[in-house]
Amino acid sequence: MTALQQAKTWEDKAAWARANRDASLAKVEPKLQGVPDVLPLSSQGLAKSVLTPREIEITENYSVNELLAVLRERTISVEEVTRAFLRRAALAQAATNCIVGLMWDEAIARAKYLDSLPEPKGMLFGLPISTKEHHGMVGSDVVTTASFVAWVGKKHGSNVLYDTFWDEGCVFYARTTQPQTIMHLETNNNIFGRTVNPYNRDLTSGGSSGGESALLGMRGSIFGVGGDIGGSIRCPAAHVGIYGFKPTLKRVSVSGQRSIMAGKETIASTAGPMAVDREALELFMKVALSSEPWRIDPSLTVKEWTPYKFTKPLKIAIQWWDGVVQPHPPMTRALKEVAEACRKAGMEVVDWDSEPLDHAKAWDIISALYWPDGGEEALEVLQETGEPILPLTKFIIQEQPTVKNHTQHELWELCVKRDEYRAAYSRAWNETGAKDGKEVDVILCPPSFGAATPHDQSRYWGYTAHWNLLDYPGAVFPVTTVDPAKDPKDLSYVPKNDQDKFVYDMYSPEKYTNAPVSLQLIGRRQYDEKVLAALVEIEHAMGRK
Amino acid sequence: MTALQQAKTWEDKAAWARANRDASLAKVEPKLQGVPDVLPLSSQGLAKSVLTPREIEITENYSVNELLAVLRERTISVEEVTRAFLRRAALAQAATNCIVGLMWDEAIARAKYLDSLPEPKGMLFGLPISTKEHHGMVGSDVVTTASFVAWVGKKHGSNVLYDTFWDEGCVFYARTTQPQTIMHLETNNNIFGRTVNPYNRDLTSGGSSGGESALLGMRGSIFGVGGDIGGSIRCPAAHVGIYGFKPTLKRVSVSGQRSIMAGKETIASTAGPMAVDREALELFMKVALSSEPWRIDPSLTVKEWTPYKFTKPLKIAIQWWDGVVQPHPPMTRALKEVAEACRKAGMEVVDWDSEPLDHAKAWDIISALYWPDGGEEALEVLQETGEPILPLTKFIIQEQPTVKNHTQHELWELCVKRDEYRAAYSRAWNETGAKDGKEVDVILCPPSFGAATPHDQSRYWGYTAHWNLLDYPGAVFPVTTVDPAKDPKDLSYVPKNDQDKFVYDMYSPEKYTNAPVSLQLIGRRQYDEKVLAALVEIEHAMGRK
Repeated sequence: MTALQQAKTWEDKAAWARANRDASLAKVEPKLQGVPDVLPLSSQGLAKSVLTPREIEITENYSVNELLAVLRERTISVEEVTRAFLRRAALAQAATNCIVGLMWDEAIARAKYLDSLPEPKGMLFGLPISTKEHHGMVGSDVVTTASFVAWVGKKHGSNVLYDTFWDEGCVFYARTTQPQTIMHLETNNNIFGRTVNPYNRDLTSGGSSGGESALLGMRGSIFGVGGDIGGSIRCPAAHVGIYGFKPTLKRVSVSGQRSIMAGKETIASTAGPMAVDREALELFMKVALSSEPWRIDPSLTVKEWTPYKFTKPLKIAIQWWDGVVQPHPPMTRALKEVAEACRKAGMEVVDWDSEPLDHAKAWDIISALYWPDGGEEALEVLQETGEPILPLTKFIIQEQPTVKNHTQHELWELCVKRDEYRAAYSRAWNETGAKDGKEVDVILCPPSFGAATPHDQSRYWGYTAHWNLLDYPGAVFPVTTVDPAKDPKDLSYVPKNDQDKFVYDMYSPEKYTNAPVSLQLIGRRQYDEKVLAALVEIEHAMGRK
Repeated sequence: MTALQQAKTWEDKAAWARANRDASLAKVEPKLQGVPDVLPLSSQGLAKSVLTPREIEITENYSVNELLAVLRERTISVEEVTRAFLRRAALAQAATNCIVGLMWDEAIARAKYLDSLPEPKGMLFGLPISTKEHHGMVGSDVVTTASFVAWVGKKHGSNVLYDTFWDEGCVFYARTTQPQTIMHLETNNNIFGRTVNPYNRDLTSGGSSGGESALLGMRGSIFGVGGDIGGSIRCPAAHVGIYGFKPTLKRVSVSGQRSIMAGKETIASTAGPMAVDREALELFMKVALSSEPWRIDPSLTVKEWTPYKFTKPLKIAIQWWDGVVQPHPPMTRALKEVAEACRKAGMEVVDWDSEPLDHAKAWDIISALYWPDGGEEALEVLQETGEPILPLTKFIIQEQPTVKNHTQHELWELCVKRDEYRAAYSRAWNETGAKDGKEVDVILCPPSFGAATPHDQSRYWGYTAHWNLLDYPGAVFPVTTVDPAKDPKDLSYVPKNDQDKFVYDMYSPEKYTNAPVSLQLIGRRQYDEKVLAALVEIEHAMGRK
C-alpha cells in the first residue's frame, strides 16, 4: 500500500502532494543559499543574494528570442540555461509559492539530449518553458491534480500544444500553481496553499495562471503557458507586469488538459502565452500553429498564423471604465499616459462608451454559463475528500445569483442571450466606422480595476471576463507602477453601485506602492494577429523598441 | 377578428395557410394551361406542354453564371427572366407541391426596379433565387411557419445571408416546402402536405430542403438556398440530380432563420447552395462571404473564400459502404463508374475503410445530440395545436433509443464522445498519408443508400448525417440514373443487420427506373474550397466541362 493510499483525510493527501513537491525541489543543486527566514515584502531583491552572477545573467539578460538565438548558436549550452532557470524557479518557489513540481531530472536529461544533437533543431531549441499544472505534461506517468485534493496522485498525460512545443525542442522544467477549481482570479488551493505576488507578498499574483505569473515575475521563467476562460492569463500577467495574450478560442488547443466539466461548450478556455517580452507572444502563436494542430484536434480553426501589417495610423478606442466599476487611480493614469503617447505618435484616439452596451448584463450571462450545472460537478469533486470550499470558490459558484443547474431549455435561452449580446457588440463596433469609414482597430482598456489586489479581494471579473464572453482576443502589457504621489485616492468619488463601492473602498495608494500596473488591448474575434500588431505600434509610441 | 384568429382547429389553421399559398399562385399570369388532371409519374415532360418556348429557353438554356451574364449585359430584362421562373415555379408546384408561397408581386416589383437602374449592380444582379421557407425572407411583414401549424401566420423577418444576396441584386420569388420539424430526409407536413420527386411522384424529393430540390428538379429555379444538419441539402439534391453543397459550419450564417431549439449548440445546421450546375456552388460561397458576414454574425469564422488549386493529381478514397448499410446496386455502379474515370485521368484511387471507424456509433451520438431535450420542445410546438406527429417525426425523435432529455452532465459526456469520435476520424485521415506522405484529398461516397426512396421510407441517415457529426464539408453531384438492365438486385446478398435488411428489402430496380443517382464528395473540416476544387477535377475526369 502506497503512502497515498494510506492517506485518509484530505489533509493527508494534500500533505503527500506537498511532500512530492518538496522532494522535487530538494534535488536543486547547488542548494539555494541566502534565502532569508523572514521574507521581505517584495521578492525582487532576492535573486541578487541567492543566485550566481552567471545565473542572473542567463535569466535576466535575454529576451526569449535573444535566448533562442544564443542557444541556436550554442554560445551557451542548453544544460547551463536549464540549470539556471531551475535554480531561479526554486528561488521563486521559496519566495512566492508558485511551483507544484520542479522537473529537475527530466529537464536536465532533456537538456543533455538537446546538447548532444549534432545540429540545433526546432523553433524552440533549448528554451525552458514553464507550464500551468492542469494542462498535463509530456510523458505518460505524469500526475496532475488540477488543484483538487481528490485528484492528488492521479495519472494524466500530455496535451496537443505541449506535444508541439516538445517537438520543437523546448525543455519543460517547472509546473505551476493554480487556484481551487481553476476559477479564481487569484491562486490559492488546499494542496499547495497561496501563491503571492513577487512585488508584494500582501497582494495576489492573480489567477488562475498565478503560479506562472509569480514565476515569470521572479524571472524564474521567461516563457510560460497559461490558460484563460475569464481572465486567467491576462489578470495574473497584468498583476506582475509581464506580457500575456488570450487568443480567440479554437486557435490554440486545450485538448488533453485535465479539468472538470469536460464536454461543456457554453464558454470555453484557451491556452496562451505569458512571457517577459512582447515578441514572445507572437512566437508562441507561430509555433503553436506551425504544426497544423487542427489535424489532431479537429475542433480548431484551420488558419495559419498570418502576421498583420497596419498600413495607416491606428484608431484606438479607450475604455475608461466599463460602466460598472470605476478603475483605481493608477489604472486611469496608465490609460491617460498611453492614450497621450498614441495621440502624439499620430494615432486617432477616441473614447469607447461601454455604458449603453451593458457590461453588467454580460457578467450575468457569462457567470451563469461558467456553471451550467450550478457548479454541481465542481462541488462534488471537492466533497469527495471533504476539502474546504475556499472563499473565492464560494464567490464564483455560490454567491453569483445567476448560477444554477439549468435545464436544457434554460441553457438554450441563456446561449441565445449570449449570442444576442455578441451581435449587439459587433454592431457597436461596426458603428465606429459608420460615419467616416474609419473603424476602431483595437480597444485599450484596464485588465482589472487596478493593480494586484490584497488576498481574497479579487471579486470583480468584469474587465477580463467580458472579453471571454465575446471571444475577443486580448493582450496585456506593463505600463507603470503604483506611485502614491501620482495616484491619490479620489475622495470626492461617489460609487455607483455595490461592486463599485467594494472596489473603491479597497483602494489606498500605500497598499499598492510599486505594484505593476498594466493595460489590456482588445481586438475583434479572430483578429488575433491584428491585436499583436497593434501592440507593437502602441509600444513604439510609448518609446519602447 | 381575422380568418386566422377564427381558425379553431389545426386543420383550419393549415387550410388558412394553404388558402394563402393558393392566393399567391392565383396571381400567375398568364394562367397555366395544359396541366393534366391526372399527373404523370414523371413531371419532366410537363414544361413542354405548359410553358412557352421562350420561357423554356430562359429557364433551361443557361447555367447560373450564363444567366447572370445575359442579365448583366441586359440582353434579357430581369422582369422577363423573373416572370419565366415564376410561371415555371407555379408549374413545379402543380406537379410536385413544392411551394409555400409564390412572391409574384414582390418579385416583379423588384425586377422592374432592377431593370430601372442605369447600370446593373451586384454579383447576383437579376438572378431569381428560391429559398427554404423557415429561413425567413427579406421584409418585415414576412410570415414563416417552419412547417409548424402553431406558427401559421407568425410574423418573421430576414436573415443575414438573404440580406447579402439582396444587396447583391437578386430577386426572391419563391419560398419552398420543408417537412415537419425540418428533420426528415423527405418533405411532408400537416400544412402543405407532401412534396414529390419531379422524376417519379411515387418517390420523395428528399428533405428537409425537398421543396427546393423538387423546384430545382423542375427547373422552376436554377439557384436555391437549402439548409443541412443531417443531410438536408445533400439528400434532396442527390434525389433530383442537381448539385448541392453543405459547407463547414460557421462559414455561412443561419442567423435570423426561424427554428426550434434556438441556442442549442451540440450540433448545428448551415445554409448552403442547391443549384443546377456546379459553378453555382462556388458562386454562392463567394457571394455569401463577400460581405464579411462575420461582422454581423460574430459566430462565423473570419475567413474569406479562397479558391483552392490542386498542383498534383488527386488522391481519392472511395467509401463503398459505411459498414452499416449496403448501398443499392445503382449507387455502387455510380461509385465504380466515377472511380474508373478518375483512375483513367491519372488520379490515385484507394478504398476508404469505414468499418473500423464505427459509423453506427457516430449515429448513436448525433441522433442523441439532435434532441438534447428528448425532443420536448419540438413535441410541445406540435401539441400546441394538436397536429398529428408524422411517421418520420416519430422515427427521428421517438424511435431512436438514444434520444432522451439529458441532464447537463449527460450532455457533456455525449459531447466528449462526439469530440473523441471526431479526433479518431482525424487520426484515420492523417494515417492515409503516413506511409508515402500522400494523404487522401477527398472521400467519394454515396449521399444516401440509393436513389430517392418511396415515401416515408427514408429511415437511414448514415450516409449524410455522419459528415454533420464530423462537420466535414460535402458536395453532391449527379452521376447516372437507375437502369434496371444495369442495376439488378443482388439476390445472393445477406443483410448484416436490421437496418441493412430494411434497405435491402426496399430495393427492386423497377421502382426506381430513371431516378437520378448522385454521389457525394467529402473533405476535411474547413477545407470547403478544396472540396469544390476536387469536384471540378472529378467532373473533368468524367468528361464534363
